[in-house]
Amino acid sequence: MPINDSFHIYDTTLRDGAQQEGLNLSVHDKLTIARHLDDLGVGFIEGGWPGANPKDTEFFKLAQTELKLKNATFVAFGATRRPGVKAADDLLLRALVDSKAAAVTLVAKSHDRHVDLALKTQLDENLAMIADSIKFLKSGGQRVFLDAEHFFDGYISNKAYALEVVRVAAEAGADVVALCDTNGGMLPDELSNIVHEVLTMSKARLGIHCHNDTGCAVANSLAAISAGVTHVQGTLNGYGERTGNADLVNIIANLELKKNKTVLPNGKLQEAFRISHAVAEITNVAPSARQPYVGTSAFAHKAGLHASAIKVDPMMYQHETPESVGNDMRMLVSEMAGRASIELKSVELGIDLGGDKNLIARVVEKVKELEGKGFTFEAADASFELLLRTEVLGKRPSFFTIEDWQTTVHQDESGKVTSKATVKIKAKGESISANGVGNGPVNAIDNALRSGLESFYPELSKLELTDYKVRILEGRLGTGAVTRVLVETSDGNGEWSTVGVHENVIAASAMALDDAVTYGLLRQGRKPE
Amino acid sequence: MPINDSFHIYDTTLRDGAQQEGLNLSVHDKLTIARHLDDLGVGFIEGGWPGANPKDTEFFKLAQTELKLKNATFVAFGATRRPGVKAADDLLLRALVDSKAAAVTLVAKSHDRHVDLALKTQLDENLAMIADSIKFLKSGGQRVFLDAEHFFDGYISNKAYALEVVRVAAEAGADVVALCDTNGGMLPDELSNIVHEVLTMSKARLGIHCHNDTGCAVANSLAAISAGVTHVQGTLNGYGERTGNADLVNIIANLELKKNKTVLPNGKLQEAFRISHAVAEITNVAPSARQPYVGTSAFAHKAGLHASAIKVDPMMYQHETPESVGNDMRMLVSEMAGRASIELKSVELGIDLGGDKNLIARVVEKVKELEGKGFTFEAADASFELLLRTEVLGKRPSFFTIEDWQTTVHQDESGKVTSKATVKIKAKGESISANGVGNGPVNAIDNALRSGLESFYPELSKLELTDYKVRILEGRLGTGAVTRVLVETSDGNGEWSTVGVHENVIAASAMALDDAVTYGLLRQGRKPE
Repeated sequence: MPINDSFHIYDTTLRDGAQQEGLNLSVHDKLTIARHLDDLGVGFIEGGWPGANPKDTEFFKLAQTELKLKNATFVAFGATRRPGVKAADDLLLRALVDSKAAAVTLVAKSHDRHVDLALKTQLDENLAMIADSIKFLKSGGQRVFLDAEHFFDGYISNKAYALEVVRVAAEAGADVVALCDTNGGMLPDELSNIVHEVLTMSKARLGIHCHNDTGCAVANSLAAISAGVTHVQGTLNGYGERTGNADLVNIIANLELKKNKTVLPNGKLQEAFRISHAVAEITNVAPSARQPYVGTSAFAHKAGLHASAIKVDPMMYQHETPESVGNDMRMLVSEMAGRASIELKSVELGIDLGGDKNLIARVVEKVKELEGKGFTFEAADASFELLLRTEVLGKRPSFFTIEDWQTTVHQDESGKVTSKATVKIKAKGESISANGVGNGPVNAIDNALRSGLESFYPELSKLELTDYKVRILEGRLGTGAVTRVLVETSDGNGEWSTVGVHENVIAASAMALDDAVTYGLLRQGRKPE
Repeated sequence: MPINDSFHIYDTTLRDGAQQEGLNLSVHDKLTIARHLDDLGVGFIEGGWPGANPKDTEFFKLAQTELKLKNATFVAFGATRRPGVKAADDLLLRALVDSKAAAVTLVAKSHDRHVDLALKTQLDENLAMIADSIKFLKSGGQRVFLDAEHFFDGYISNKAYALEVVRVAAEAGADVVALCDTNGGMLPDELSNIVHEVLTMSKARLGIHCHNDTGCAVANSLAAISAGVTHVQGTLNGYGERTGNADLVNIIANLELKKNKTVLPNGKLQEAFRISHAVAEITNVAPSARQPYVGTSAFAHKAGLHASAIKVDPMMYQHETPESVGNDMRMLVSEMAGRASIELKSVELGIDLGGDKNLIARVVEKVKELEGKGFTFEAADASFELLLRTEVLGKRPSFFTIEDWQTTVHQDESGKVTSKATVKIKAKGESISANGVGNGPVNAIDNALRSGLESFYPELSKLELTDYKVRILEGRLGTGAVTRVLVETSDGNGEWSTVGVHENVIAASAMALDDAVTYGLLRQGRKPE
């Protein structure tokens, strides 16, 4: 693939992103993420450190044969040669050549104190290591980027030495010198000043690599780009050590939508939501609903005041169209909601209220009444949809009735805990009694319910309870305290949330489970009785 | 409390933060969060919109009597008067007076298009609404802040009108005009330019209110402060609609640690970690491990290159000391991080550790081990104190042993739900079997336990379970998901919190109840067996 050199979007999810606590990627995971990154249209994908660990060596080997990249160029990561050896004799440098990656990024010290204390060598030897390593790799035909580690801290501590690192690297042939805020402590104003000064005093092409320790990784990256760098590094979903790296999608969206700077192939930004979430499934890191641009809440509206304005024009309360990044606008139904939000929500759910003012008023009243009792629908879309369909149809869409249930939890003297449940259900005219066990009373009822319904609805075996939240609500409107349960259920293709409220936590759970299974069957296209 | 007017730290967690999807705060939650905010040392706490909904009206009423703020001033939120009515006749404005809050924030339109389409009135009438409303409230002795909604979008669309809003508000007596990036679409450079221009063309004291839609809420707030605003609004943990508001702790830490600008009372920043997490337990929103400064990963280092450098000097790979915000460095074998806080906490609990280094190290290890399993002591002081006393005494302070328990919940055909429990206890050498019923399985176990112990400890009848929270934690260290239960108990004189963790929700609850009753007896001055 031809490299677009006007501006580099450089992804390091597979290397620096994988430093995140709790994130462990298999070689297969890395190959899948690389495909997604290529789909997004980034220019460079840093795949890992071949030679430093067997997984990364294997990844580069497999990447040669298994991946046909359409947009991106693979980059192998490594370090400058060790002190006191020739570049050609350094095994790790040779592994970078052997990786056959078209480009290599070398990390180098640019902070005098780190040369002394971490590298334990002389300042001049560090410069020689940089020059030798770059020349060695360039002579083999690889493109070479230099990551100047701790550059900003180094510049503040010893400006002359940090600048010398940039000069030496550029003269040795580095294609880009990426200035790294390794510890993430910079703020945009000072960072911007330093980038300006370096650009004034050097002819090197510069890049930027930020971490989010001050909450400014995106703003720092943008400040450096405004100052003149033409290569930006970051990770998907801001993965990375400590507080993470700069969120690359966030940077890209700001550049394309706010700065009118095209950095991805045409139409690719609209893949951002899909790719961000697909990668979160692979990493198994729960995505943040509040993530800029691609979070599920990023274009969600709750306040009643906003909703009526949004009916007039959605752009009154959103900064971009959600479609620009492949996201959706969502209306959250809550006690603050009025008619406008109910109407917008119904359209979103694909239910036609036909502008029926009485119907809409009934739904608003019902929501207010139930929220007064402790229900919450903004976090329970599926329960809200059932409520809406009940009002539209005049009766609840129903596949079964739970007539009686009982659950017992026992801890014996050895400390062993067991949970079992029995449910009596009526479905398709039949009365069924079924048992279940589980790792808790709710799980036991869930299993009993599904085992009882299985012969009628075998697809229920696909359903899985994925989250469960309980909250005690103080007495409202003169009643005693009630318990609110939120249940999240998945069928492998999607997730939905339901709510139950009762004085008794198990009864509230059973109510939420009833909604969860009913909604699950509607999703499968089953027609209610 | 005297108001420090040199720079305003203004928190809107309870109003704008509560707009977050899935976040629902009871009046009790709001009072508790207000106490934490006051502990943090913020200058202003925006409590809600009295008059607009009954919950907020009640909150302001209770806040008068139940809260003794040490640092903060309460602020009531509202809107300018409706078009075409006198300020004195506007019921919502009157409700702001009735709230008795020392300060009021009025939201006003500053974007011409919103005046036209959302407010549906004339541009001049909007200015009159602003002036009248401010004068009305000022004449009653309240301090008045104006939130200029959509200010930046408005300024870009119609600069003259946006400036007119600022001028009119200042002339009517507004103490601060807060420029709001309501839709969150700004980037620091343009925002900074606009703030500069407004400051040049106006004598008003300015504030800033940012949302995180571009991932730049913190950087935007800092840019405005650098440009000259002296009042910054934000929320704890960045809670808020869509992508959230500016994270106030993040802003404060950057100001104090990076800009050497003191904005909190001395020593308060070190409470930030504790308060951020305590509030997350109340909101029941899972905190982000990667949150700048206060995330559990914010100072965590994954093994590798960094480890050896950190052994030489931790500051080589961290931008600030974790202690500066009350956080801990993780991955270091050294127990240094935990020691100071354990010692401080013990002093606070009145337990003398006598500087015993081995004892302190054992406590640190135990806390780390249990937190690794999903326990949290941040929100469970009583469980922590029991742990501490166990290590001091060499055995757990114990009044009884629960040898076996069983609980059953049943819903019959009429819909009636019953919960009962049996416990077998050993206390004072006797074996006791006792039964209980309740409004749920946990309440039934609690009642059975207390009925069994009543003859030995009649004071147990005073104990009441006042709150109960459940959270599912994802699998850790290769294990499956576990359930964490937090229980709050009261004896009429005070409240205490305990924690239990188990695969089974009822077993986790029984564990937390065991701690709750044990701690309750210690509080009554009973000597353990």
